[in-house]
Amino acid sequence: MLFFQNDYGQGCIPEIMDIMVRTRENSYKGYETDEQCQLARELIRAQMPSKDVDVHFIMGGTLANLTMIRSVLRSYEAVVACDTGHINVHEAGSVEATGHKVIAVPHVNGKLTAKAVRKVFDDSMLQYGHMAYPKLVYISNSTEVGTVYTREELESLREVCDELNMYLMMDGARLGAALMSGVDYTLDDIAKWCDLFYIGGTKNGALLGEAIVITNEDLKKNFIFVMKQSGALAAKGWILGQQFIGLFQDNAFFTVAKREVEYAQQIQTIANELKYPLYIRSSTNQIFILVSEDEFSYLRDQVAFEVWEKLESGYVIRFVTSWHTTQKEVDQLSIYLKQAKLLGNLDDPTY
Amino acid sequence: MLFFQNDYGQGCIPEIMDIMVRTRENSYKGYETDEQCQLARELIRAQMPSKDVDVHFIMGGTLANLTMIRSVLRSYEAVVACDTGHINVHEAGSVEATGHKVIAVPHVNGKLTAKAVRKVFDDSMLQYGHMAYPKLVYISNSTEVGTVYTREELESLREVCDELNMYLMMDGARLGAALMSGVDYTLDDIAKWCDLFYIGGTKNGALLGEAIVITNEDLKKNFIFVMKQSGALAAKGWILGQQFIGLFQDNAFFTVAKREVEYAQQIQTIANELKYPLYIRSSTNQIFILVSEDEFSYLRDQVAFEVWEKLESGYVIRFVTSWHTTQKEVDQLSIYLKQAKLLGNLDDPTY
Amino acid sequence: MLFFQNDYGQGCIPEIMDIMVRTRENSYKGYETDEQCQLARELIRAQMPSKDVDVHFIMGGTLANLTMIRSVLRSYEAVVACDTGHINVHEAGSVEATGHKVIAVPHVNGKLTAKAVRKVFDDSMLQYGHMAYPKLVYISNSTEVGTVYTREELESLREVCDELNMYLMMDGARLGAALMSGVDYTLDDIAKWCDLFYIGGTKNGALLGEAIVITNEDLKKNFIFVMKQSGALAAKGWILGQQFIGLFQDNAFFTVAKREVEYAQQIQTIANELKYPLYIRSSTNQIFILVSEDEFSYLRDQVAFEVWEKLESGYVIRFVTSWHTTQKEVDQLSIYLKQAKLLGNLDDPTY
Amino acid sequence: MLFFQNDYGQGCIPEIMDIMVRTRENSYKGYETDEQCQLARELIRAQMPSKDVDVHFIMGGTLANLTMIRSVLRSYEAVVACDTGHINVHEAGSVEATGHKVIAVPHVNGKLTAKAVRKVFDDSMLQYGHMAYPKLVYISNSTEVGTVYTREELESLREVCDELNMYLMMDGARLGAALMSGVDYTLDDIAKWCDLFYIGGTKNGALLGEAIVITNEDLKKNFIFVMKQSGALAAKGWILGQQFIGLFQDNAFFTVAKREVEYAQQIQTIANELKYPLYIRSSTNQIFILVSEDEFSYLRDQVAFEVWEKLESGYVIRFVTSWHTTQKEVDQLSIYLKQAKLLGNLDDPTY
Repeated sequence: MLFFQNDYGQGCIPEIMDIMVRTRENSYKGYETDEQCQLARELIRAQMPSKDVDVHFIMGGTLANLTMIRSVLRSYEAVVACDTGHINVHEAGSVEATGHKVIAVPHVNGKLTAKAVRKVFDDSMLQYGHMAYPKLVYISNSTEVGTVYTREELESLREVCDELNMYLMMDGARLGAALMSGVDYTLDDIAKWCDLFYIGGTKNGALLGEAIVITNEDLKKNFIFVMKQSGALAAKGWILGQQFIGLFQDNAFFTVAKREVEYAQQIQTIANELKYPLYIRSSTNQIFILVSEDEFSYLRDQVAFEVWEKLESGYVIRFVTSWHTTQKEVDQLSIYLKQAKLLGNLDDPTY
Repeated sequence: MLFFQNDYGQGCIPEIMDIMVRTRENSYKGYETDEQCQLARELIRAQMPSKDVDVHFIMGGTLANLTMIRSVLRSYEAVVACDTGHINVHEAGSVEATGHKVIAVPHVNGKLTAKAVRKVFDDSMLQYGHMAYPKLVYISNSTEVGTVYTREELESLREVCDELNMYLMMDGARLGAALMSGVDYTLDDIAKWCDLFYIGGTKNGALLGEAIVITNEDLKKNFIFVMKQSGALAAKGWILGQQFIGLFQDNAFFTVAKREVEYAQQIQTIANELKYPLYIRSSTNQIFILVSEDEFSYLRDQVAFEVWEKLESGYVIRFVTSWHTTQKEVDQLSIYLKQAKLLGNLDDPTY
Repeated sequence: MLFFQNDYGQGCIPEIMDIMVRTRENSYKGYETDEQCQLARELIRAQMPSKDVDVHFIMGGTLANLTMIRSVLRSYEAVVACDTGHINVHEAGSVEATGHKVIAVPHVNGKLTAKAVRKVFDDSMLQYGHMAYPKLVYISNSTEVGTVYTREELESLREVCDELNMYLMMDGARLGAALMSGVDYTLDDIAKWCDLFYIGGTKNGALLGEAIVITNEDLKKNFIFVMKQSGALAAKGWILGQQFIGLFQDNAFFTVAKREVEYAQQIQTIANELKYPLYIRSSTNQIFILVSEDEFSYLRDQVAFEVWEKLESGYVIRFVTSWHTTQKEVDQLSIYLKQAKLLGNLDDPTY
Repeated sequence: MLFFQNDYGQGCIPEIMDIMVRTRENSYKGYETDEQCQLARELIRAQMPSKDVDVHFIMGGTLANLTMIRSVLRSYEAVVACDTGHINVHEAGSVEATGHKVIAVPHVNGKLTAKAVRKVFDDSMLQYGHMAYPKLVYISNSTEVGTVYTREELESLREVCDELNMYLMMDGARLGAALMSGVDYTLDDIAKWCDLFYIGGTKNGALLGEAIVITNEDLKKNFIFVMKQSGALAAKGWILGQQFIGLFQDNAFFTVAKREVEYAQQIQTIANELKYPLYIRSSTNQIFILVSEDEFSYLRDQVAFEVWEKLESGYVIRFVTSWHTTQKEVDQLSIYLKQAKLLGNLDDPTY
């Protein structure tokens, strides 16, 4: 069966496995203090020369998010996010479990706007002391629905954060795809805009691991304590460092993401040509289309994919490309999509 | 200046102060274990003969809510509430501070529907384990905007909770007003429908204090530990018991609420006749009307009230009646409302 | 039955009840913003002219402690306390419930030493990042066993906190008794030594309430949010302010404490003369003595007191004097103590 | 330099790396739901035929502990542990961060006794409701200082837990070493005694990962939610499953642990013969000896080890053997130990 279910369904790119195999018997000090993490750190820092950043390595996205948020906020402070934001929906209340409210606002194309942030802040201050204090803005880039923030949107968010004395944090689980989607900004720009963010490894070719980047001097201190407290300080931390050596020493991070996006965009184009309605227009490696019951029945026997939403008639389904996706698989998916459409329209004389 | 700002702006009914004065020098064991709390408990139990209930006394509404919710939920469980729910908006993230997500859904007339509860539950189970588990339904009765749940609505909520194995909790900060608004149910019915609820004292004539009622056998055990852990176990607990002796031994709880509602309804009727648009039709002791800038300017010099919302032009303002409100004050407010309307329409030939 | 069980077993001094009765029908804005709280604040500030302090009013001791600690600490920071400290033993894990470890160290005469604080800090830094970060020193004065910190001890604690960049917090549930025990320091000195502390009302003649004093500029900001989040912001906050008007406008705070201490010291002297072993030598209003089984049996029928500890043979029991204790009661207790001793030694020819 | 610093300083046994390499390109569903985790589960279940157990895989020890404890306890409940227990000392307050108190009691040979558990329970119940409720007993086996619980000790702990209605949890970070230390019990016995425990992979030859085993039916439900909430549900969960396939399909778990223990015991014997005082007599893979300043200076240039404690004169140091330790390394360490002793005693004519 074809696999387009997600971008974390296969192991890792060969470069990474090679490093792991090669160093299997080496002795390291662990807890992020070894030379492998140091090398990974340097490679990441080289991507953002404008800022002097701290880099930490954490095993997964939810753990990264909760550790970062817990680290930034004081007890009474809250984080503002889209209603579609990963921390609001798909992390089982992990932020709240650290004691902080997620103030959710309606998304616009999967994104949080500067205007919405300002409204949340103003509303919260109306009865000073009676509502949670919004201190941190959380955005995902690319978003949970495959869209990407523009330079202007990010600059506006930075501006509103500066004005309201708030922090800006980016969940970069799929940051690679965002950067390879044709935007006019780089990791260095991200580092300039965000107080902290993470570069996703798990969904971009690594076996596991996310690299947390802290750019704001005030947020760097004692982060290691929060990691340990959250169970997020890996004993064999060098394994995490190695993921990012593999991703950044020869730019695999970018080439993997670029290929993922290209393949996904092919799928979106074909789906569009085949008259599958798009749920949202994605510019990254996640594609969301509407299918009828018949189309669904046919496709699910050929392809592994995610059901995003059950509609009254039909479904929103999601195809995701990964580091492992091939042109051949994309071509095969196109054939299935065509056949599903034909089957689904056998009775439709206009088709 | 007239005071219609809220229902907790004056001390308490004389019956309660009398008890406090009379017992000032008595020696009690404290921590809810004394005879005063025991008497208050019996008076409350007499209101709900159908159930064998536990009763505890807590100093305020937010503290009551967070203690009850923390007591009921396991770490991964969440509470479902209206977006307008007090715990979602005006408790500064106190529920989240106990580690639990508040899943907010759009209100209907200030109320949570059984249908909305079911949808939250079904959505949360879609990706089993990835979303917080909805276990508790939180409603306020009367609601934050003065509306009241009908018998049918409460029965539906009880039904959906039974079906989904969820608990139903009622925030009764203004339960007196709800019960005196003309509904066809009693405290005994509330006890049958809810797994736990609290009877508000602070906003219904007491100096301070809320009476928590636990009807579900499974939720009774060790509640005292959660109270202590939350800083909610009063050393001189008998003071809290005395509030409810004062409220229930001669039915002041009901007579105070009845009078509050009647006065407020007079205000709503007059405002309506004067063509002030209603923000929402209230059936209790909080009245919400729309006023123009001019009307606002005039009124705020005569009357203390709350600004509920700033509109593009004008305001939503709230008048609340309390145990201390008099017919004379209501009449005077009517005069001010009339004058404000006249002033506001000096240039309007059709008025 | 004589009542020496605790210092919070009777209502309040008449001055306070008078204020409450007199203002019962006044309208106030609530939430600490009214003129009553403002007056109480000024009276407290007048006691500590050396510092510019913030004052807040909270309903009880556990709630005060957890709110203050939660307000001061970041997620990974811990509080250092005696093993006998109230927050470590008798608050049902309320500090841990806010997410913070209480690092308990063996007490010396019920007190925490500067040396112990330094050792905890040094040990915690040994494996940097792997142990909770000790940031706050918690002491009770007077202590849970009736002892009092000397000027030298408090200066040492301040010094070690300055050196290690830690905060010093005093739980003043029985601060009145400490100050009236013959020490050479005042509230003004406390304000100079501590970053924050609270002045206990509940155990010193008030009906309820503690006054939190914040002296450290960095800790003042947004405290009201933490209060609200903890359910500790009283709607009818003026009631709490009134307690401290009653305590400080004519120095009742000090006269009550002075009398309590004098009576308790009489009891300790008599017990000592009667050869009751002292569990610890107290200089305040709590007295701890050892009694045999026979003495215990006799006393418990005449006097309400607390059992502090069950020994292999006999008990440690505690007598506490309160604002309500009279010379007559003390004399009667002396008689009981004498009789118990006689009865307990009927068979002892040497007695 | 020789490496005896810890048992998590090198990658993993070849069997595990082989599986990872071989399956690198396979597509899996993730989140513990794949066939690799299923196989690992079956292998672990085969070790404990007496019980029907649930098995989950988590990335590291601190994360395992906090997830398990958070899952078991209600808000007001506490965990009882040795003062030397890992959760009490070296997890940066991670349990408290989930809201629960760790009640620490003095260890006996690194172990917690049934008697101590009973005392904690009885003391906590003295003032019912005022102290945290002890509900869970936490032990490490082998302990943090290399000792191992006997069958009798474990049976006593089980008994006291049954009697007091408490749960028993074992931190098995080094369970392999405990089982290979010559004890008369097996994994199946552990499963019978404990309500839940984890089998450590990270410190016993795996690249990362611990296997949580839940034997108590009441504790199984919805554990996946707590994992997700804690950031402990790995997207590429099959990697964790593979660790335990590697450890259990050909008994590497036991052979690795056996070898570790044998090598470590050789070191302890030699150290003893060389008259190095033992800090504690270990029966597992961690050896603790006292060295003088001179011995320390010599050794630290030849061998990587941990400093356990700084003494007034000299040090307690720890040597740990790992899956990667060889006989040759042990022999070399013996030579260094001998030389250090010679150098350290050059001036001692009696040596």
